[in-house]
Amino acid sequence: MLWYMVNALIVRASWNPMMGIKIFLLRAFGAKIGKGLIIKNEVRIKSPWFLTIGDNCWLGERCWIDNLDRVAIGSNVCISQGAMLLTGNHDYKVATMPYRNAPIVIEDGAWIGANSTVCPGVTVYRNAILTVGSIVTKDMDANGIYQGNPAVKIRTRKIE
Amino acid sequence: MLWYMVNALIVRASWNPMMGIKIFLLRAFGAKIGKGLIIKNEVRIKSPWFLTIGDNCWLGERCWIDNLDRVAIGSNVCISQGAMLLTGNHDYKVATMPYRNAPIVIEDGAWIGANSTVCPGVTVYRNAILTVGSIVTKDMDANGIYQGNPAVKIRTRKIE
Amino acid sequence: MLWYMVNALIVRASWNPMMGIKIFLLRAFGAKIGKGLIIKNEVRIKSPWFLTIGDNCWLGERCWIDNLDRVAIGSNVCISQGAMLLTGNHDYKVATMPYRNAPIVIEDGAWIGANSTVCPGVTVYRNAILTVGSIVTKDMDANGIYQGNPAVKIRTRKIE
Repeated sequence: MLWYMVNALIVRASWNPMMGIKIFLLRAFGAKIGKGLIIKNEVRIKSPWFLTIGDNCWLGERCWIDNLDRVAIGSNVCISQGAMLLTGNHDYKVATMPYRNAPIVIEDGAWIGANSTVCPGVTVYRNAILTVGSIVTKDMDANGIYQGNPAVKIRTRKIE
Repeated sequence: MLWYMVNALIVRASWNPMMGIKIFLLRAFGAKIGKGLIIKNEVRIKSPWFLTIGDNCWLGERCWIDNLDRVAIGSNVCISQGAMLLTGNHDYKVATMPYRNAPIVIEDGAWIGANSTVCPGVTVYRNAILTVGSIVTKDMDANGIYQGNPAVKIRTRKIE
Repeated sequence: MLWYMVNALIVRASWNPMMGIKIFLLRAFGAKIGKGLIIKNEVRIKSPWFLTIGDNCWLGERCWIDNLDRVAIGSNVCISQGAMLLTGNHDYKVATMPYRNAPIVIEDGAWIGANSTVCPGVTVYRNAILTVGSIVTKDMDANGIYQGNPAVKIRTRKIE
């Protein structure tokens, strides 16, 4: 509940460009964050205590980590503006639709494109790319470039 | 205009967790709302006087009911976070692009997934599911599970 | 930095229906804007000094002009609610992922649908339409109607 207010007033705020304060508060509420994080405005994090981030990551404007379950982000990862990491799901085979959450893992060097969505339970392996606006429901291979809804592998990434 | 200010300052606010107040205000501005509504933060409702909601529904964080026309939601419906119900359209065959709005109906037990969009004029029949990030432009069959842009039926839902 | 604060507090604000003030401020920060612009709430513009807009355009609620590079919008263009013009990109062939931005051009009479995204470097030719939630990565032909992710041409627009 305290996190709720701190988040609404300071961390998620659109007027606050001071990343140091945000990172301090996220850590105070249990997030494990490495060095060199860039965290832009209106980043939305549901549960800092379920969040791990490596070194030199980027959280773009208005991206949304909706972590009802654990989210583990490696190093050198870019989550672009408007992207969503979605851990919450419902079991639609039961009439009351109980929660059926699942964690997300994003390995080193991956890039989650603007306005895209990573669904519950997905692992994004090293250096994979999810293109703009794509929706990924299954694991992404290392170095794979994925596009569409549902996202499919369209190319392999080559890093020179 | 009064609704405009009340909406901006209280109902849509990111800092207000008190659902009772929001529901009270929506009803005061003409919405018909049944029992047990869960309404999360930053839900955006254009015109409460064009909104009907049954019992035990869920409006997820930052979902957007852009109702320039009527939106009728049944009971036990879940509108997940970031989803949009879009009633406004333009007639693009005319150079001035006049409005060509149309109502949306969502029947009992349906689930509109996170970040998805329901287009003007669509009826979502009982227990149908629109998956994450999908865009539906035509009516959805009862118990149908739809995915993609435009969304197509990929499976039938079985409730045990 | 001044733009940053003015933008957060006044131009992008959810409570401010006074379009005249927004347009005045955008022009003061370098935007070239024609006559008759309608600019709804929570429109997000990164760099007004990189923005040109013709006459009689419409910027819908919560649309997002993320212009790290130039964005040139013609006359009689409608950018619908929630749409994004995305000019920022990264060169993913290099491990450090340097910026690789590119401008966007939207010609007269085009309509960018709700929740859709126009990717860096795209030119949208006259009267083309990008449908709801679609993601366009390549140039759009004049009068073409495009849908999907990636968007493909599905029809030709006929204006009576």
